[in-house]
Amino acid sequence: MGDPAIESLGPFWETVVNNCNVGREHKKSFIPFKLEGEILGYIHPRFWERIKRFEKIFFHDPGDLRIGTGNGWITLHPTCNSTGERTRQIDTILRLLENEKNITDWRNELCPVVTRFDGHRYFSIERAALPFFGIKCYGLHMNGFVRMNGKDFLWISRRSKKKKSFAGIMDNMVVAGQTPGGNCKEKLIQKALAKANIPVHMAQKAVSCGHVSYEQCNGLKMKRDVIYCYDLELPPDFLPFNNDGDIEDFKLVSLADVAKLVCTPGQYKLNSALVVMDFLFRHGHIHPLQAGYIRLHESLHSGDNH
Amino acid sequence: MGDPAIESLGPFWETVVNNCNVGREHKKSFIPFKLEGEILGYIHPRFWERIKRFEKIFFHDPGDLRIGTGNGWITLHPTCNSTGERTRQIDTILRLLENEKNITDWRNELCPVVTRFDGHRYFSIERAALPFFGIKCYGLHMNGFVRMNGKDFLWISRRSKKKKSFAGIMDNMVVAGQTPGGNCKEKLIQKALAKANIPVHMAQKAVSCGHVSYEQCNGLKMKRDVIYCYDLELPPDFLPFNNDGDIEDFKLVSLADVAKLVCTPGQYKLNSALVVMDFLFRHGHIHPLQAGYIRLHESLHSGDNH
Repeated sequence: MGDPAIESLGPFWETVVNNCNVGREHKKSFIPFKLEGEILGYIHPRFWERIKRFEKIFFHDPGDLRIGTGNGWITLHPTCNSTGERTRQIDTILRLLENEKNITDWRNELCPVVTRFDGHRYFSIERAALPFFGIKCYGLHMNGFVRMNGKDFLWISRRSKKKKSFAGIMDNMVVAGQTPGGNCKEKLIQKALAKANIPVHMAQKAVSCGHVSYEQCNGLKMKRDVIYCYDLELPPDFLPFNNDGDIEDFKLVSLADVAKLVCTPGQYKLNSALVVMDFLFRHGHIHPLQAGYIRLHESLHSGDNH
Repeated sequence: MGDPAIESLGPFWETVVNNCNVGREHKKSFIPFKLEGEILGYIHPRFWERIKRFEKIFFHDPGDLRIGTGNGWITLHPTCNSTGERTRQIDTILRLLENEKNITDWRNELCPVVTRFDGHRYFSIERAALPFFGIKCYGLHMNGFVRMNGKDFLWISRRSKKKKSFAGIMDNMVVAGQTPGGNCKEKLIQKALAKANIPVHMAQKAVSCGHVSYEQCNGLKMKRDVIYCYDLELPPDFLPFNNDGDIEDFKLVSLADVAKLVCTPGQYKLNSALVVMDFLFRHGHIHPLQAGYIRLHESLHSGDNH
């Protein structure tokens, strides 16, 4: 087992982990976004400048200055007090912000706002707006692998050039957003068919094998993401085919080649590379004797893990 | 996939994770043990009372009180300045402490003192003394599993009643200490033969699949342990046999049964249970929809990870 082409772990840090978790030192300058006593997210002071005019919805509580709460926190106006009302009012504001180009890559996808995967839904919000509020976001990724002559190969995809995000770059075989609290396996089976034409009876064999996480401050945005990882061993004669237009084509690559790809800046979708690294660790392709093994393994969960 | 018998993750927290990491709130009352500017470990003030009489070796530096270093730190006397000299002098003291019953479970095994697995060796110290100095300690555990009719079964062992530690309780199939910087796979192959009569050609197929860690303050001791995890799929007709007297017998159990065992206080060796939990996560037997999935998965690495 193992792959001699994965010689040094340094490039995984430089190209993947550090960039997935870039800008975390700026987290302290973000303003907490609180509701019902819980921190739902974090808002950049410059984004706050763009939304504070909506004073019937957003409200800046300076906090108790005697106990040093710093920037205080942003919350919703007390009159905006039901799940449905919050969702509707905020959606109206976000559409305005999108028109002004203050929010880009609109997805037309309402996401529940939670503090943990199985937690209470406070309201729902357009997916493109999640990072502007620093709200937790969940995804599913599936490693499709083939074992031939005792060696593992990974199916990877090239994202369509028409995608709004990361167009044309390499990605894992099946990738999807996941609604908090939703049934991950069902969603995975459905997406495996849509993305890679994997029949249901095959996708059912996908094995849940953990999670990766990261936390990223990038300009006005804060991404706090958790990705559930699945493995599916595919028969050598299976050929994937994209059904929903999201994927340009698929390629079956050796693990040495995928390791090189994820370490080449700009080639592989960054957060997806964490999932590849997790696969390499779990399947014995990175060895305890390699300098920095334990810290790198640990770094795959750099986000807040809920 | 998956096992309906693993219904709630609560008992994993209550019986395993919280107990593996018991007493961490007391860490701040331990005194750092520093050498050459690095923190090698942590010493309980009551253990310090027992060793401070050896003033030619151990030295309490109060630190710079202006910058609030609290308890200061314990270090070695400047005259005790070579690796060999430190090892010899400390060994003499430890043997005296063992005679006085201040150190128990003497193993006759010198362990390198490091701050990370691939780091500089400051000196060596008897294994039984590691937790009294809060020095990092490494181990290897192998999950031996059998797949029959699409279901996984784990080989578990019962520790010999003559073992100095955890006599008579259940444990993973192959368990060994690991010298920092040493070749884990070689050691695993050697121990797989000694512990479970697994032939070399079979043990070579064991797959490195990550690590677990914990940090425990228990009376005067602090354990800061990292365990490298390996999986080996065994053929259904393989029967393990112990060669070195450490193991009473082996049992092949369903994952539901091993999950129950690790959740029954006193049945399963505590740190070994973390390795079982890691196996359950990686092989799809714990599901993302189970409440607390992400935090529990993350908790398998609660130690400091170097």
